[in-house]
Parts: sequence; structure tokens; C-alpha cells
Amino acid sequence: MSTADTWILTAQCPSRLGTVDVVTRFLKENHCYITELNSFDDRLACHFFIRAEFRPENEGFDSERFQDEFAPRAAEFDMTFELTPPGRRTPVVIMVSRTDHCLNDLLYRYRTGQLPIDVRAVISNHPDLEPLAAWHRIPYHHCPITPETKPQQEAEVWRIIEETGAELVILARYMQVLSPGMSARLSGWAINIHHSLLPGFKGAKPYHQAYEKGVKLVGATAHYINDDLDEGPIITQGVEAVDHSHYPEDLVAKGRDIERQTLARAIDYHLQRRVFLHARRTVVFAGS
Amino acid sequence: MSTADTWILTAQCPSRLGTVDVVTRFLKENHCYITELNSFDDRLACHFFIRAEFRPENEGFDSERFQDEFAPRAAEFDMTFELTPPGRRTPVVIMVSRTDHCLNDLLYRYRTGQLPIDVRAVISNHPDLEPLAAWHRIPYHHCPITPETKPQQEAEVWRIIEETGAELVILARYMQVLSPGMSARLSGWAINIHHSLLPGFKGAKPYHQAYEKGVKLVGATAHYINDDLDEGPIITQGVEAVDHSHYPEDLVAKGRDIERQTLARAIDYHLQRRVFLHARRTVVFAGS
Amino acid sequence: MSTADTWILTAQCPSRLGTVDVVTRFLKENHCYITELNSFDDRLACHFFIRAEFRPENEGFDSERFQDEFAPRAAEFDMTFELTPPGRRTPVVIMVSRTDHCLNDLLYRYRTGQLPIDVRAVISNHPDLEPLAAWHRIPYHHCPITPETKPQQEAEVWRIIEETGAELVILARYMQVLSPGMSARLSGWAINIHHSLLPGFKGAKPYHQAYEKGVKLVGATAHYINDDLDEGPIITQGVEAVDHSHYPEDLVAKGRDIERQTLARAIDYHLQRRVFLHARRTVVFAGS
Amino acid sequence: MSTADTWILTAQCPSRLGTVDVVTRFLKENHCYITELNSFDDRLACHFFIRAEFRPENEGFDSERFQDEFAPRAAEFDMTFELTPPGRRTPVVIMVSRTDHCLNDLLYRYRTGQLPIDVRAVISNHPDLEPLAAWHRIPYHHCPITPETKPQQEAEVWRIIEETGAELVILARYMQVLSPGMSARLSGWAINIHHSLLPGFKGAKPYHQAYEKGVKLVGATAHYINDDLDEGPIITQGVEAVDHSHYPEDLVAKGRDIERQTLARAIDYHLQRRVFLHARRTVVFAGS
Repeated sequence: MSTADTWILTAQCPSRLGTVDVVTRFLKENHCYITELNSFDDRLACHFFIRAEFRPENEGFDSERFQDEFAPRAAEFDMTFELTPPGRRTPVVIMVSRTDHCLNDLLYRYRTGQLPIDVRAVISNHPDLEPLAAWHRIPYHHCPITPETKPQQEAEVWRIIEETGAELVILARYMQVLSPGMSARLSGWAINIHHSLLPGFKGAKPYHQAYEKGVKLVGATAHYINDDLDEGPIITQGVEAVDHSHYPEDLVAKGRDIERQTLARAIDYHLQRRVFLHARRTVVFAGS
Repeated sequence: MSTADTWILTAQCPSRLGTVDVVTRFLKENHCYITELNSFDDRLACHFFIRAEFRPENEGFDSERFQDEFAPRAAEFDMTFELTPPGRRTPVVIMVSRTDHCLNDLLYRYRTGQLPIDVRAVISNHPDLEPLAAWHRIPYHHCPITPETKPQQEAEVWRIIEETGAELVILARYMQVLSPGMSARLSGWAINIHHSLLPGFKGAKPYHQAYEKGVKLVGATAHYINDDLDEGPIITQGVEAVDHSHYPEDLVAKGRDIERQTLARAIDYHLQRRVFLHARRTVVFAGS
Repeated sequence: MSTADTWILTAQCPSRLGTVDVVTRFLKENHCYITELNSFDDRLACHFFIRAEFRPENEGFDSERFQDEFAPRAAEFDMTFELTPPGRRTPVVIMVSRTDHCLNDLLYRYRTGQLPIDVRAVISNHPDLEPLAAWHRIPYHHCPITPETKPQQEAEVWRIIEETGAELVILARYMQVLSPGMSARLSGWAINIHHSLLPGFKGAKPYHQAYEKGVKLVGATAHYINDDLDEGPIITQGVEAVDHSHYPEDLVAKGRDIERQTLARAIDYHLQRRVFLHARRTVVFAGS
Repeated sequence: MSTADTWILTAQCPSRLGTVDVVTRFLKENHCYITELNSFDDRLACHFFIRAEFRPENEGFDSERFQDEFAPRAAEFDMTFELTPPGRRTPVVIMVSRTDHCLNDLLYRYRTGQLPIDVRAVISNHPDLEPLAAWHRIPYHHCPITPETKPQQEAEVWRIIEETGAELVILARYMQVLSPGMSARLSGWAINIHHSLLPGFKGAKPYHQAYEKGVKLVGATAHYINDDLDEGPIITQGVEAVDHSHYPEDLVAKGRDIERQTLARAIDYHLQRRVFLHARRTVVFAGS
């Protein structure tokens, strides 16, 4: 696990001999001690991913200079990289509708420091959850939406996201389908949570369909938003057993517990830079 | 858990006052001590299910007479019922193709008595698994199949099933789609196992599709055969975590372990009369 | 799952022919439709447990009369029983110290109605969690404790519990060892949560000991208080995987998530009258 | 996951700047493409662990030369290392007593290639499992033991292990306590499986003790043998839910399923060189 003095370097590039070496050699030369390292080469996609946690051994580690000097070496490999400082709280915006199970969980983890986030705003198409945000002293923006006002509402939402400087948007049970334009803008840096059922069900009232089918498991999937809502790249999934005594409303309740845990875990992975997005899949260095 | 001296009485009928009482009073009157009882009323289907394990307190329990005397009382409630004696090994036929992970697991549980089954025959459309059956001294029927010979092959398979007196048919990775006629014949007393993926995938090479999607869970579903192959009433489901390092062949391997466990669990539930089939759903009194 | 119109009848007694019948016949005679029934006979303890959810079919169900009339029949079996009305919110007192992961979770479930409890008071030996209680408009009693003042403090705590009319006391990470007298008073109607590690560790800093040992799982146990603190009858247990990268503080954090889920589940079982206490063990009709 | 052409290099040493670089630079210089890399620095133990899967890009990879040339570089870091070729089947000896659930599972995985092992011998203090070994054409050595003959028996067992050239000894429910001398000889390269219960129980009949306590989970631990039997360094642990209806014999049966799965997983990790032993703990790069 990362600590107060560990930086994180993440990078990805096409597969080629030397992809690890270009990273690890540079860290060594800069007196950075690697405390945890994971790399993976996707042999089907021919793409390489690496994540290093490290501790600078010299005082006065200069991150600007580090990046400037690493950039040309990375460029040789067509490598994109990101350097994340220790102890940083990522500015986020949380979007919700009326159900608060995910919001309450996230705000608890925010308040107690379990998730290193700085919640800049809560945006909702309903006024219901304002008191919860208020108790945590977080600005709450009520942005109602109708089919007619959707463009304006999304513009307003976007304005708020931009103003807050959010680097991550969390859709914590925001029950509106984003427009293609909005999805495109949020692609890769917004995380959504939705139910996952075996077998999968399309259309309305999925839990009712699952009940009709007599499923014995219900689950949830946390994924990045991309242009294919509810079908974006999967970050993590959770599941729990149910039985015949679970009526549709019980399945929904069960689903809520899984949703909030799965969403929190996805955000944790994202903030720790454990998730890499490539094409339509993710690489997640979940543990160790 | 049932023991060497416990009988099982199962029954179901439309919901109506007295459904429990008609069963429990009769058991009391016949000096049968109930060691475990579960009943459930499905308020949406308006249907009632009950399972009782009991121990006759008088010697010389006469099961024929028990059933004869209970029948008219059950009839008043349009109740169907079944009485299962202790220590009985259910005659089964196992159908396979070439992969043996489920067959090996089932034969192990058969050999060690973990599953109270009497495996009367193994039927396969390939000769590969004959030695495994032979070591367990079980007749192995090689029934090859082509699109042209399907009717004859199914007739032959059916003949074997009938001759063995099988009361349960287990499709332990039998990779042929049954004809509607065969499915109808096996409806409700044949158990199949197949992969379950989140989200669901239709068509060929499901694990490859799941890989493309980057799923983080793979699972398996055990279900009764009905007229809708791979979509019959679910008995139980299993699931395990995977990650980006699982290539399609790794997902398949992972799936195998889940399949054999899930199939064995389904059969165990079925044999213990814990599974009730009603319309397109099951009620499963899994524990306690 | 129980609904707005289902009552719950629970009972236990020594094993004897007719234990089920005495309950189910009475329900039938009183026009009570059983929607869910579980009974279990512990053949080693020779003790019988039964739980019935039922819906009175006649209007004006008189619970007083029901109990008065059932009492003599139960007495014939040395049977103790309890009748629980639908929709009741059980008055509870929550005891905490400084960590709030369990309290926050319980208050969320209280606020949203997921747990049918009426939190009458929060008692703590520290002032830290007062704001959290205040936001939920729950009286917070700061009862500091020292070895010298323990008798007085426990007397004060007991006075508050009595005044509130609490029927359940929840020790949600209350980090004080109760005196034998206090434990005796709370025996069987107070639920505690504590860590569970494989193998078990005694003494201080259990997570540090677990780290030293390199455990791969950490867990939590929810149990009733009895005269043997941390060793009372187990209601439910939870567990999660960890690895070498979890330092002691990470194990503690992981433990917190399991603790709050396990505690909430135990309370849910208790309130639904799914837990029976007999000698030093519990019978829990967890599902269906 | 490793494939037919990937080698594995594992190493460990005291923590010091450059530990990663010395490995990754050497691989690069030798035209070895790293397909998967994990390193971890234990900041409490001040010890470093690394595992690299790699694919030589030049034909005619010379492993002898590779090791000879890497040795002096490793020596500078007091680093021990091991190079494992692709596709190798590790010679193993399996020790059992009378229960066959683990042996049957291991032989199945051996036969189907799921575990890359070459089972050279099965050793037992009982004759019971000879037919199972015979069907797999594996020599079976019956080495009976009494308190008096223990030294001679262990000498005989040791002779067989040595003669077979086994590199891993698997105690698959071998129900004898090894002598300190035998434990010392097997320290670090023999894997044992035993039950794990929450809370832990010492002494005889642990499942009976667990039953008395009313545990809701039972588990198993796979660990290396060292001088402290049943308490050696943990490799992996498994767990499953149980309830009041599980009598001691049911807990034992449940335990068996967990034991065989947990043992197989531990062996898989070991063979893939994912397990590092340091002092009394392990580092396990389980996934990715």
C-alpha cells in the first residue's frame, strides 16, 4: 500500500523490448527507490502497462524536472506517462439522482480520509440529497432535467465540473442517460456504477426481469464512461448470493449494498492509479 | 443435514390457508418427528412449497401406507408431494463430450459417497472419456452424432436412459444442443451446467467475448433442462474473480473449476429434494 | 422476506414429537397464513427451534388474545415463544468509543429505514462522535471511564439504557471490557463486533500479530454478549482476502469494512428474529 | 499467465537502491522481453522481492550463461535468484494417509496438465489409496508407522523422496506429526494443508470444538513446513460459510472441499514461483 512519501509513476506504450528498463533505469538514476512495481504485457493487444510506487531517496525531489527529463526517453517508446505525488486529494464531482446509498458511502469515506478525494460539488437532477451534502459542507447543485432541457442541463453540469477543477466525475446512481456529447467529454475520467445480473437483462426494471428468471446471484459493475453508456470499460465487479425469497424489491436492496462497495473499490483503484484504460478494456493492478 | 434415518417429504400447491398444517398435522399423527422444516409462500406466484425431514418414531414405518393415506388430504389442496427414503442412491446417467472436469468430479463424489448417486451409464458423442468410466466400472456408451444422425442418436440416447432406469440425467459438459423433443422429454429431471458471464454473451466463443470486454468475474449456472436450452430454470450459480492477465484460455480454465463445483452443488440440492420447480423459476431451500 | 403485514412467531423447546404441530395447528386455527417457516431440531442438544412468518387472514387480529391462548399449549412442551408485530422499530442504544465506521453505517441504515431500529441514544466513553449523532438528532451521552470510575460509569450507562427502554444494545466498537456484572445484565440482548483472525490471536494488537504471521484472510465476528466477552455466542462472521502488501494499518482498515458489514447483518438477523440462542450456540435461519 | 515460451526469474535481497534495476537492466541487455513483472519492498522487514516472466527475443537462449553472468551482479546486492524454464514439470512426491480428497484432486490436475507436476511417488502410512495411485501409474509406497518405528519410517520416506529427485513434497492430508529433524529437512519445500477455524482451536477434534462454539465459517490454510508444524508460513487460505445445521461430520465434509481447493491453489502459486519465503512470512504475487 502506498504511504505518505511514495510517488506513483504509471505508463503505457506499444510492446517493445526495453519498456520496463526505460522506466526502472530512470528511477534508479534519479535515486528513486521502488517499493512496489507491476508491469503487464498484453500479448493480444501488443500493449505494455507499468505502475511503480517509489520513494525518492534524495531530499528535494523535483517532480517537474523529473517529468521533463523522462519525457524524451518515454517518447522513444511512444510511451505516455503520469506522475502522481503522495498525499494528494483528487478533486471530484459526484453526480446523483434521488437514491443516496452510494453518495452516503462516498461522503463517509471522504470525511474519514479513506478515499483521498476532495469533493468539490454534488450535482443532482433532484433536490432530495441536499441535506446530506450540506452536513458535509459540500456545495449542492440542483440541475433539473427534462427531455427538452437536456442540452442546457448538460451544459450547466459541464460548467460546474469545469469550474470545480474536478479530475474525476463519479456517477453515483445518476439515473439519466448522458448524451453522446457529454459521454465523449467524460470518456475515461468518469466512473459509473450499475447493476450486473446473470444472465444479463436489457431494458427497464432489470431486477424484476432477474426475479422472473429466478437468478441466484446479483451483482454490480463499476466502469468508465465512454461513448457506450453502461457498457464502458469495466473496472471492477461485485456479486452476492440471493434466493427465491428475494422479491424484486429485495433484489434492489441487495443490489444497493453491492453497488456502493463496488463503486468505492473502483474509485480507490482509480485514485491509486491502478487502472489503465486501453481500447475497450482495462488493466487493473489490484493488489500487491 | 439429513442422516441415515431421516425421510424427506416435499410438496407444493397453490397458496391457501392450511397448507402447512395439512402436512405437519399428518406427520404428527403418524408419529413422525420433524428434524428440519422449510416452507415458503411465493406471494407473487401464489404458490406454496414445503420440505420436511423427519424421523419415524415408531418402528416399521410403512411408506406405502403413508402415501396412500396422505394422498386424499393433499388432494384437497391440489397438492403434489413426494416421499424420499433415507440412504437411497438415485440412479443417474451422465452425458459428456470430451472435457472431463465435471465427469471426474462427479465420479469422485460418486465413488466416495459424497453424492448419493448410482451412476448407471456414461453417454458421450466421443470415445475419449471411456477409460475414466471404465476405471469406475461404469458402462460407457459412445453415441456419435452428426446433423444427419441426430434423430437416431437421440433415440439411442433415450433408449439407454430408459433402460438404466435413470431418475436424473446430468449433462456434464455435453456439447450438443438437444432437439426440442429431447428437451421436452428431459424437462425438469435433467441438469445442465453452462458458463455465466457478466454481462451475458450470446453466440460462439463466449469466453473470448468476455475477454474482449475485460470482465472481472466469470461464473457458471446449473439449471434444469426445459424447452429453452441454456435458459432453463436456475438451480444455483457460482462466480470467481479474474483480471486482465487471464487470456481467453485462462478464463476457460477458471470457468472449469467453477462449473464442476456449481454442478455438484446443484445435484446435491436436487438429490436432497431441496429444489422445487414451478413455472420458470426454482425455490431452493439451500441451507438449514 | 417479511413485509408490512407479516407477523413473526418464534419458539424453542426440548425436542419432542409434536413441537411443529403445536405451532402450525394453532396458526391454522387462528386463520393465520404462514408465508415462511423454518424449524430445526438440534439432535445433539435435543432442542427444537421454530420461526414462522404469517399473515392473519381475518381482520382485527388480536395479538394479546393470540398469546394468551397459545401460552397453555406452549407450556405443555416447555416451549418459550415470542410474537413480533409487523413494521415495528426496535428501540436500541448504540455504544461506541472513538472509531465511527460501525456507527456511521448503522445510522445510515437507521436513517434510510434499512434497519428497523429506533436509535434512542448513543453512549460513548469519548466525546468525539457527538456531531455524527447530533446530525441524526440522537441524544449523545458522554460517559468517560477510568479504572477507578468503572463501577459508576457502568451504573450511569445502565441507567441510560433503562431510561431509553432499549431492547437491544449494540456495541459498535466500544473499546472497554465490560464488568462481569454488566455483561450478565446484557447477556443475550447486546451484540458486539470484534475482529476474527486465522489463526486466532490473543492479547493486544491482534492485527500486528496477524501481520507478523502473514495471514491471507482477515475477518470479523458478531456475537451476543454473555459472561465471556469476545467469546459469546456467534451470530455471523465475515472474511476478506489480504496479502503481503497489507501492513498492520491496512489490515485494520480492511477489518473495518468487514466489521461494519458483519455487525449490520447480525443486527438484521436479530431484528428479524432469525437468531435463536441456546446454551453457548446460536441457530440462525439466515435465509428463506 | 505464463505461456509455453516464458521463463521466470525470481529474486530477493535486502532493500537497497537499484534492486529492481539490476534485474530489469540485465534482462534488457540479454534481449529478454518482460511480459509480467511484480516487485515488492517489505518496508518493515527491509527486504525486497521480485518476479519477472520474460520471453527471450533471440533464438538460442542460453540459461547457463544467463545465470553465470547474472550471478556477480546479484552478489553485489546479496541477492539470491532462481531461473525457471518454460513448460517444466516439477518432480513431486505426495504424502497421504487414508483420506483421498486432496490426492484425487491433485492426481486429476496432474493427469490433465492443470498442474505442471510430475508425480514420482505417493507415500502413505496406510495401504488404502494404492488403487488410486495405480490407475494413474504412480508408484505407491506403503510406509506404516508406529511411535516406535517413527525414526526408521521417516528415514525410509526420506530415502524415497531423495531417490525420486522430488523438488516439492506435498502433504495432502498426511496425518502424522513430522519429527523436528524431518521438518527441518523439508523446511521451505514441502507444503501442508490443514483446517483453519475462527476462532482457532487447539488440540484434538477441532471440528467438534468448532461445532460446540457454533462457528459460521470454516476454512483451510496451506503453508510451508518448517520447524513449527501447522504453524509454518502461510501461502493461501480458503473459507466457506456454514450454519447450525452442520454437525461436526458436516463441518469435516465442508472442510474437505476447501482443503483440496486451497492446497491446489498453493501448489499452483508455488510452481509458478509466485511465493517467496522470508523469515516466517510469505510474499505471494497471486495475480497479474
